[in-house]
Amino acid sequence: MADPIEFYFDFSSPYGYFAAMRIEALAARQQRKTLWRPILLGAVFKLTGQQPLTTIPLKGDYARRDLARTARLWALPFRLPDPFPVATVAPCRAFYWLNDRDPEAAPALALALYQAYFVANRDISDPAVTVAVAAELGHDPVLVGQALNAAEIKARLKEANDAALARGVFGSPYIIADGEPFWGADRLDQVEQWLARGPW
Amino acid sequence: MADPIEFYFDFSSPYGYFAAMRIEALAARQQRKTLWRPILLGAVFKLTGQQPLTTIPLKGDYARRDLARTARLWALPFRLPDPFPVATVAPCRAFYWLNDRDPEAAPALALALYQAYFVANRDISDPAVTVAVAAELGHDPVLVGQALNAAEIKARLKEANDAALARGVFGSPYIIADGEPFWGADRLDQVEQWLARGPW
Repeated sequence: MADPIEFYFDFSSPYGYFAAMRIEALAARQQRKTLWRPILLGAVFKLTGQQPLTTIPLKGDYARRDLARTARLWALPFRLPDPFPVATVAPCRAFYWLNDRDPEAAPALALALYQAYFVANRDISDPAVTVAVAAELGHDPVLVGQALNAAEIKARLKEANDAALARGVFGSPYIIADGEPFWGADRLDQVEQWLARGPW
Repeated sequence: MADPIEFYFDFSSPYGYFAAMRIEALAARQQRKTLWRPILLGAVFKLTGQQPLTTIPLKGDYARRDLARTARLWALPFRLPDPFPVATVAPCRAFYWLNDRDPEAAPALALALYQAYFVANRDISDPAVTVAVAAELGHDPVLVGQALNAAEIKARLKEANDAALARGVFGSPYIIADGEPFWGADRLDQVEQWLARGPW
């Protein structure tokens, strides 16, 4: 069985959202499974001296334009949310809670959370919003709400984050395909070629 | 007559080199002229808080890998030079000196300087190397050497740099096609679609 495509992303990353909207179709074309791994990039950004793209002089204006243009090109619904960026502890915890109980269902929750934020402009940093999005997919809001405050899930997220850092992940989206790392939604073409042709 | 493709780049930028190797073929396919505009990104990097990609923790290791992989994919000869990055005042001055005398010949000099640095590992920050590269293309080494120290050329480069900044240029390569800005060698596909289909 071929390795799954490892898909690391931050819920506050617009290019991560773009990749999330395209990764499953790519994986299906290449007959691969995916492994969705949301992370908190704050710690990495400190290490690499990065700031959120849209907050940087000059680059920020360009980023807003590039995001809108790329969304139109790929026919993805998108608006830059307000507030942006936001803390993504709540959606990450909801994801890992579900992932450890029903891994097949977890990517759909991640995608719904991404769409809530980048399409419907709902503030997923608010635990109540994250719970509501999960409830809309049929998950028990009481259980999800409890999970967001559970020490076990907190530890689970830290573990996932540490594992990503140890794997060299420093941005979003960050994709590892057959051991090869690819950073950015604009590397999806290379990811697909890497899987289709093998290493070049 | 349709507008030329404005092509801004820093001679120390590997992705700028990649774009330089591909921009003329793209322009020919889309029946456009090009306007090559080397700049010094140091001033912009201060403003945007950027550092050279390969010097950033985590990102640097990835960048080296991505550069080598992308060069192989596009079949471009490439090695990361040593030293890297370098100051590029000398090649910029040589370019503008030639550009103001023989604009048709200037892109070929820029490409030769890029190849000297990113293929042959010659240190183009050394004025003697820049003069030698120009001489290999048939330009008078005495005149080029004088130009590198001329107050007029120094002012000309400053003017070109200020104009780029005023245009919003903050990275390399940075391409403006029909008024639309594109940053990065990985946006060349979008540049070509923008010209082929018109704005979307």
